[in-house]
Amino acid sequence: MKIRLGLIGLGTVGTGVVKAIQRQKSFFKKSLGFEIEIVKIAVKNTRKKRDVKLPKGVIVNDPMLVCNDPNIDIVVELMGGETVAKKVVLQSLKQGKKVVTANKALLANHAKECFETAGKNDSCIGFEASCAGGIPLIKCLRDGLIANEIIHLYGILNGTCNFILTQMLERDMDFPVILKEAQEMGYAEADPTFDIEGIDTAHKLTILASIAYGVYVDFRNIYIEGITKISIRDLQALDELGYNVKLLALGNFSKKGLDLRVHPVAIPKDHPLSPVSGAYNAVHIRGDIVEDIMLSGPGAGMDPTASAVVGDIVDIILGKINESFHRTSPKQTKVNYIPIDEIKCSFYTRLVVKDHPGVLASISSVLAKNKVSILAIHQQKLSTKNQAEIIITTHKATNKDFYKAINVIKKAGYTVTEPICIRCAQKDSF
Amino acid sequence: MKIRLGLIGLGTVGTGVVKAIQRQKSFFKKSLGFEIEIVKIAVKNTRKKRDVKLPKGVIVNDPMLVCNDPNIDIVVELMGGETVAKKVVLQSLKQGKKVVTANKALLANHAKECFETAGKNDSCIGFEASCAGGIPLIKCLRDGLIANEIIHLYGILNGTCNFILTQMLERDMDFPVILKEAQEMGYAEADPTFDIEGIDTAHKLTILASIAYGVYVDFRNIYIEGITKISIRDLQALDELGYNVKLLALGNFSKKGLDLRVHPVAIPKDHPLSPVSGAYNAVHIRGDIVEDIMLSGPGAGMDPTASAVVGDIVDIILGKINESFHRTSPKQTKVNYIPIDEIKCSFYTRLVVKDHPGVLASISSVLAKNKVSILAIHQQKLSTKNQAEIIITTHKATNKDFYKAINVIKKAGYTVTEPICIRCAQKDSF
Repeated sequence: MKIRLGLIGLGTVGTGVVKAIQRQKSFFKKSLGFEIEIVKIAVKNTRKKRDVKLPKGVIVNDPMLVCNDPNIDIVVELMGGETVAKKVVLQSLKQGKKVVTANKALLANHAKECFETAGKNDSCIGFEASCAGGIPLIKCLRDGLIANEIIHLYGILNGTCNFILTQMLERDMDFPVILKEAQEMGYAEADPTFDIEGIDTAHKLTILASIAYGVYVDFRNIYIEGITKISIRDLQALDELGYNVKLLALGNFSKKGLDLRVHPVAIPKDHPLSPVSGAYNAVHIRGDIVEDIMLSGPGAGMDPTASAVVGDIVDIILGKINESFHRTSPKQTKVNYIPIDEIKCSFYTRLVVKDHPGVLASISSVLAKNKVSILAIHQQKLSTKNQAEIIITTHKATNKDFYKAINVIKKAGYTVTEPICIRCAQKDSF
Repeated sequence: MKIRLGLIGLGTVGTGVVKAIQRQKSFFKKSLGFEIEIVKIAVKNTRKKRDVKLPKGVIVNDPMLVCNDPNIDIVVELMGGETVAKKVVLQSLKQGKKVVTANKALLANHAKECFETAGKNDSCIGFEASCAGGIPLIKCLRDGLIANEIIHLYGILNGTCNFILTQMLERDMDFPVILKEAQEMGYAEADPTFDIEGIDTAHKLTILASIAYGVYVDFRNIYIEGITKISIRDLQALDELGYNVKLLALGNFSKKGLDLRVHPVAIPKDHPLSPVSGAYNAVHIRGDIVEDIMLSGPGAGMDPTASAVVGDIVDIILGKINESFHRTSPKQTKVNYIPIDEIKCSFYTRLVVKDHPGVLASISSVLAKNKVSILAIHQQKLSTKNQAEIIITTHKATNKDFYKAINVIKKAGYTVTEPICIRCAQKDSF
C-alpha cells in the first residue's frame, strides 16, 4: 500500500516530518506494510535552500495545488495562522482527504467548522502535534482515559514561558533580559506576544478542554493572564516561600461548570509539576477512576513535534483516528463557564509602599474588610529612601474580593509601583 | 450497537471494571453510540458476596462457559496465572472473540502463541492493563511514539517494591518490618516473591521491550535481581550520597543488541524518576526523535487498572487495536541479548569488615587489579567491637570485573557480612 502525502509548510516542523518519514521508510514498509510518498510540498518561497533532499517537482508555491491534487491522500498542514490554514484544511477535507495539523490557533477558533466538515466528508483530522509537542497527550486523553470523567487538567504547555521563568530564577536575571536572549536563541519568536501573554497556552487549553469535556469550548471564555509582570524579585520571594512559578493552563471540571484559566501559578515544590523546568511541557490529569496521571516531555522543537505529526499520519493510515474532535460527540451545546471572579484562590502579593506609619495597618484592614484572610506577611525596608516592600500570602479568597481589596489599596495612595499578584496553588487545589 | 462482554475473574480489578462500565453506561450510549452488556462472569466461588449488583444468571463457575458463549463479543481475562488463563485466552480467540487481559505473566511467557492465534482468527488482544496500571503506556509506546526508534526505556513498574523502598527510608525501618506492614495493608501479596524478587517487573519489561523492539522477547534473557538484600543503612547512605534507590526495569536498545535488566538502581536525585514515591509507577522513554518522555501514575489498584481495561474495551469496539503484539510485525526472529557481565555500571558497595590494619589497602588493591576504579570511599568504625563499615562508590566497570573483585574480597576472609552491591545510575546512563 502506498500513501500519498502533501505538506503545506516546510519550516522547522515540516523539515522534521520529511526527515522522519525518509528515515523510517523501510521500517514502515517492512513492518507496517505501507509506504509513504511525499507528493507535493507547498511553500512560500520555492527558491529557499532546504535541509532535506526532495525529488524535482515536489516543491510548489500554492497550497491549493496540494488540497486539490487527486493523487494526495493525506494533507499535513504546518503553515500556521488561521486564514489560509483554515481554507486549506476545509478544502482538503471537502476533497475527502484526511488532514494532520499542528495548528492550535486554528483548532482553538475553528474546531467546530473543521470537524463538522470532516464528519460530512467521511474524513478525519489528526492534531496530536497541536498540544505539548512530542507527548502523546491527546491520544492519552481521548482514548487512554476514555473510561474516566476528567476532574482536572493542569498543564505547562508553553515551552517559551517555562524556559524564561526557569532561566530568570536560575540566573538571577529579569524578564526583559531573558526574553531577549530566548529570542536570540530561537526559544522565543520575534513577536513573542502569543507565548508570553498566555494566548498560545489558552489555545491549547481550548483544545484539551474540548476533548476532556465533550463540547466545543469557546476560547473567549478562558481567563488569560501572561507572565510579563513577574519580576525576578517575585520568583525569589516565592522560591523562599517554597514555590516555583509556572504559567499554567488550568481546567477544573465539575457539575457547576467549567473553570478554565491561563495564568501564572506559584506551585508548591513538592507537587510533581513544580520541578518541570526549561522548555519542557507537562500535564497533570486527574480522572475519576484513574486518579492522577502525569505526562512530561519536550513541548516543541523540530523532532518532537515531527514525532507527533508522523504518529498521527500512521494512526490515520491504520484507521485509529475517527472523525470527532472530542472523546465523545458533543453532548452539551451550552456550557456553564465559571467566571474568574467567583474562583477561590490563595494569593501572593508584593507591594512596594511609602514607608509611613500606619500603612501596614491600613493594608491589613482593607484585606480583612474584603474577606481576605492573611496567611503570612513580611515587610522590609528597601534601600530606596522611604520605601518598604510588603509581601503577603493569603488564605483562599475569591478573585473578586481579593482584587477589590488590591484596588482599594492602590487608590489609598501609598503604593509606589503596581502591586504584583500571583495565585498560589495548595497541595491539591489550583 | 450492543457489545456483549464476558468477564473471567471478579476480584479487585474485575469489580472495578464492572463498576466503571455500569457508571459510564449512559456516556457510552449517548456519546460513543454503543452499549456494553455484561453477559457472563466466571468466578471460582459463585456464593461469595460481591460488591457489585448483577442480574441473576450472570455469575457462572466455569470460565469455558464464557469462552464458548456465542453471545459474547469480548472476553476480559482477569483471573491471573498462566495455565487456565492461557487456555481461556486461546479458546476465546479461536471462537473469534476479542480479548482484553491484564495478565503480564501470561503475555511475558506466551505472547507468541496468543498473538499468532489472534492473527489467525482475525481477532486482537488489548493488554494496556498489564503494565503500569492506569498509565496509558502501551498506547503511547505502540502508537504515539511509532515514528521513533526507542533508545531506552526505564521504568518503576512495581508499586509494591516502590512502596517498600519509600517507606523504609521515610520511616527509618528495615525491609522485613515494612514488608509485613505492606502485606497487612494489602500493598503486598501474602506470597510477595514475584514482586520483591523482581519477577513481576521483568514480566512487564518483557512486554514493553517486545513492543518497543518488534520481537518476542524471551523472559529468560532478562537479568533479574530483587530488593530483598537492601537494608535501611544502604538507603540512608545512598540518600546522603544524593541518590534514591528504585527497583527499575531497564531496556537499552542499540545495534549491539538488547540490554534488558531488572535490579535496584541508585538514581541521582535530579533525575525525574528519582522522586517517584509510594505505590506510583513511572516510565522514562527516550526516542530517537521525540527525545525524553516521562509518564507516571498509579501502577495498580482497582480503579486505575479498571481504567486501562475499559480503555481497551472501547478501543476494540472502535477498531483501534490491531492484531499485532508489537509496534511492528516482528522483523527479527533472533535477538542479540547483551549479557549482564558485559554491561558497564557505576557501583555502590557496602562492606562490613574486621577492623584490622591493611584491610582498606587490600580492598583498594583488589579493585584496582580488576580494573574497578574507585570514585569515593568512606570508612567508619562500627559500634560492634572490631568492625568497620566501608562504603565505596566506583567509576564505571563491567559487571564481570566488579563482581570478580567482590568475590576476591569475600574470599580474603575479612568481610563479616555479605557485601551489599547496588548499581548507580549517572545523569544519562543507567
